[in-house]
Parts: sequence; C-alpha cells; structure tokens
Amino acid sequence: MDYATLIFAAELIGVSVFAITGALAAQGKRMDILGVVVLGIVTALGGGSIRDITLNAYPIGWVINNTYLWTAIISAVVAFIVCRYFLYPRRTMLVLDAAGLSLFAILGAEKAMSLGVGSVIVVMMACITGCAGGMIRDILVRERPLILHKEGELYATCAILGAIFYVVFYDLIEDRLLAISSMLLIFMTRLMAIFGNLCLPEFI
Amino acid sequence: MDYATLIFAAELIGVSVFAITGALAAQGKRMDILGVVVLGIVTALGGGSIRDITLNAYPIGWVINNTYLWTAIISAVVAFIVCRYFLYPRRTMLVLDAAGLSLFAILGAEKAMSLGVGSVIVVMMACITGCAGGMIRDILVRERPLILHKEGELYATCAILGAIFYVVFYDLIEDRLLAISSMLLIFMTRLMAIFGNLCLPEFI
Amino acid sequence: MDYATLIFAAELIGVSVFAITGALAAQGKRMDILGVVVLGIVTALGGGSIRDITLNAYPIGWVINNTYLWTAIISAVVAFIVCRYFLYPRRTMLVLDAAGLSLFAILGAEKAMSLGVGSVIVVMMACITGCAGGMIRDILVRERPLILHKEGELYATCAILGAIFYVVFYDLIEDRLLAISSMLLIFMTRLMAIFGNLCLPEFI
Repeated sequence: MDYATLIFAAELIGVSVFAITGALAAQGKRMDILGVVVLGIVTALGGGSIRDITLNAYPIGWVINNTYLWTAIISAVVAFIVCRYFLYPRRTMLVLDAAGLSLFAILGAEKAMSLGVGSVIVVMMACITGCAGGMIRDILVRERPLILHKEGELYATCAILGAIFYVVFYDLIEDRLLAISSMLLIFMTRLMAIFGNLCLPEFI
Repeated sequence: MDYATLIFAAELIGVSVFAITGALAAQGKRMDILGVVVLGIVTALGGGSIRDITLNAYPIGWVINNTYLWTAIISAVVAFIVCRYFLYPRRTMLVLDAAGLSLFAILGAEKAMSLGVGSVIVVMMACITGCAGGMIRDILVRERPLILHKEGELYATCAILGAIFYVVFYDLIEDRLLAISSMLLIFMTRLMAIFGNLCLPEFI
Repeated sequence: MDYATLIFAAELIGVSVFAITGALAAQGKRMDILGVVVLGIVTALGGGSIRDITLNAYPIGWVINNTYLWTAIISAVVAFIVCRYFLYPRRTMLVLDAAGLSLFAILGAEKAMSLGVGSVIVVMMACITGCAGGMIRDILVRERPLILHKEGELYATCAILGAIFYVVFYDLIEDRLLAISSMLLIFMTRLMAIFGNLCLPEFI
C-alpha cells in the first residue's frame, strides 16, 4: 500500500467517524433519518468544503469522487440503526474522532501550504478543516458550538498546535515524516486533553 | 412561449414563493421590514447559491440577472404589507411552495448533471437547491431547521425521490419529458405528504 | 500618504473594530480565548469573504495578505485581556463601529461595481460586506441576529442608504469624492440612529 492509498483510506475513516459524531448529535432532538444523514454529511464534509471554497481550490474533493459522500451517508445510517440497539462506545469514538481531527487538520495544512498562502492562513485552514464541520453541526442542532466553549476540553487548540508545528518545521523535515509527526502531535495532545480534562481559560 | 422562457417564468414564481415563506417566518419574531426582506432573499436564493459555489458553477444566476433579486425583494415586501391586513392563505402557499420545491430541485439536478458529477452528488445538489434556503431561514429566525425534524411532513425526501428518478432515467427519457415528469413526481409526493401527513421514522 | 495606503490603513482599523465587537459578543457566554478569537475573525472577515465568494472575486483579500488575519487575531486577544481589567468604552466603540460599517459597505460597493454587476446587486454586496460578519457572530453566540430585529437601531439600513447614494451618483461624481461622501452619509445616519434611537417599523 503506497502513501496516497494510505492517505485516502485514512481520509475515509475520518469522514466516517465525523459522520457518526454528526449522526449522534441528533440524539434526543426528535430528528428523522434524513436529518441524521444531513448532519452526518455536514459534519464530515463541511470543514474541507469551507477550506476549498475560501482558498478557491476547486474542484472540492467530494464533488468529483462519490466515495466520500457515500461513506458519510452510510456511516450516518449505520449509526442511526445501531444506536437503537447497542450502547454507544463513547471512549472508542473519542479516540477515533481525535484521529480524524489530526488527519483532517494536517491534510488541510498541506493543501493550504501547497497553494502558497501565508503561515497564519495555513494554521487557520488546518483549524477550519478539522473543526468547522462540527461547528455547523452544533448550529443545526441548536447547541452551543462546542469548540468555542470552556466546557469542551482542548479541541481546536490541538489542531492549531499541530499546524504551528507543521509550519515551523516545514523546511527542516521531510514531507511525509513532517505530516505524520504533526498528526501524532495533535492526536497525543487531544488524548491528553480528553483524559486529563485540559481546558483554556474562560472569558468573563 | 418556448421552453427557456417557460423555465425562466417558473423560476421567478419559485423565487417569489420561497421569498414569501421566508418573509412569513418572521411573524411573531419582532423583526423590522429589512429583516423580513433579508429572510426572503436568503430563503429564495440561498439554495441555488450554495449549489453553484460548491460546484464552482460561476457566475451565480442571480448575480448576473437583477430580476431574481428584485422578485425576491418585492415578494417579501408585499408579504410584509399584505399580512397586516389579510388572512394568510396557508393551503395555497403550501401548494405553491411544493411547486417551487419541485422546480428548484430538478433545475438543480439538471445543472449538476450538466457538469458531469456523480449520481449521488446530483441527488444531493437537487436537495440543496430545494431545501438549503429554508434551512438558513430557520437558523436565522432561531427555529429548529424544519426539514431535519419529525414534525415536518416529508419535504427533502420528496426532492430526493424526484432526483433519484431523474438520475435513473436520464439515459432513457428525453430531456424535457424527464425534467417535467421528475418535477411532477416531487410535486405529487409532496402534496400527498402534506394532505396525508406522511413522516419519516424518528431518531431516538 | 496616497489614497491606496489610506484605504489600507482604514481597512485595518475596520477589521480591528469589528474583531473587537466580535470578541465582546463572547461576554457572559463562558467562552475560552480561542472562541473569542474565532468570533473576532468571523465578525471582521466574514462579510468580505461572503461577498468575494458570491461574486467569484478570488483571491479573497485576507487569504493573500496575512496582515488582515493578524489584525483580527491581535485585536480579539487584546479585547479579551483588556475587558478583564478595564471598563468597556461603549460609546467610543459604537462610533468606531459606525466608521467600520461605512468603510466596509462602500469598499464592498466599489468592488461589486468594478465587476460590472447590476445596481441592486451592488447595494446588496455593500450590505453583505458591512453586516454579514455580525450576523454570523450573532448565530455563533446564539443571540437573535441583531440587524434583523426591531430592537437594533438602524444599521444595515444606513449601509443600504449609502450604497444607493453611491450607485445613483456613480456617473456624476469623481470616484474618490463619491466614495468618501457615501461613507460619510452612512457614518452620519448611523450616528443619528444611535443617538436618536431611530428604528424601522416592526413586523407583526
């Protein structure tokens, strides 16, 4: 399996996990299955879409390759069905979501970097790719956007740290090694945040 | 009257009806006339805009032809004035809205198809063109997005059914006949949903 | 200092003021510093981004020039810190915000006009550039979008008046004089609205 296939497989896992978190956000909101699928799609594909539209990086990946959209739809439907009969594996999902965040953020940073935008824009795009889908999900189910609030453990912050690492060492470390170590940095800090309950200082 | 003129006239009716439903969503929300016009514009032009931006199908129709925007503005203002003095014709509006949905969904599918994207993307674009404007409207007036919820009768589902019909028979039926029969399918299922109170199963 | 430098400096002041109003919207919402920065960025850069995406006027200004994003981030962080120790200068901020609105609206109108779109689109783009960022901010902090409601004094209305003035006199007055007088018109009507408590009629 070469690097491109590996990334593609990892992307699909990320899409699937994000779609499941989208579907699960519908719990207790009296949504029907279509609403659940919409939430899954928006959570999984929203961040990358906003990034590509802002950067004029057309065509958007999922528009020209059906696989992403199908992955999101099927994941959301499966989550819709499974949740009626099985207990939700919260810890497993948090770890998978952390993996999705790491991957999406650094793929977003790579894309922005390849378009030659400034460093701060690269970091912002990493953050948007990883987090914007979840923000739209929260707006649609009328919850407070989680990543803006003190209650959430560090989430976007992990993506930002990883992206800063990526930008700082861009000229010093070989491409793939850099991508993988940045992703690991996000993954580890996110896990530490979850299991150590790390937060940012609250605004008055 | 040729086909293009017919479609243009039908589009303007769709814009007008959607703008009116946008304006009416402002009832009881203590909005001023400007807010009403903003809601009308967003509901009428939002779906098509998101579709064109996602597909990179620039220029967006209403940006290069003033008629759409004027239609939306005038419809919203008229609704604003009329609602103070007359009873709101709920049934008539629901039927007109069903017509608007049918037309917008299939025009969206046609546009996506002409750009050569995959089948599932075509269906999604039909759904976005018909429904996204109403979703933004609901967010702006801080209601639960209607199409995501069990309380609403089938709405997006009708658009999806019609779009699937359109995609499946694309190579078998002549263009205009296909468009018209897909629209009719959406229109009929939507009317059946309204007057028969059809819903999708609810998520727990 | 030539005209372009003057405009650039004024733009940065507008970005800074809008970012501060974004940050201040976080008060009492239990947000952390990252949420505050996100709100600042969205409020400052959201309107212009939507305008450029809708008009296909790529690249978006802040994507190719880091200065805008840095200005928004630093302004939001400073507001975050200062608000803990000092009283918020409400009146000063309202006046600065009126200046930002005037500038953004007319710069938006200029950009739309230079792309050759119709008059009503120019006015709409002026309005979007000046007001859309604040609307997204209100949605993210789950407040009623201020500009849609009766409680707010005239805000978008001022931008619309100025933009109409700009469009009507476009062929009659020299470019810079026209831009400056349109901005002044917005600024003055907005100040009158604030200190005279002018509102639009409410929708029932």
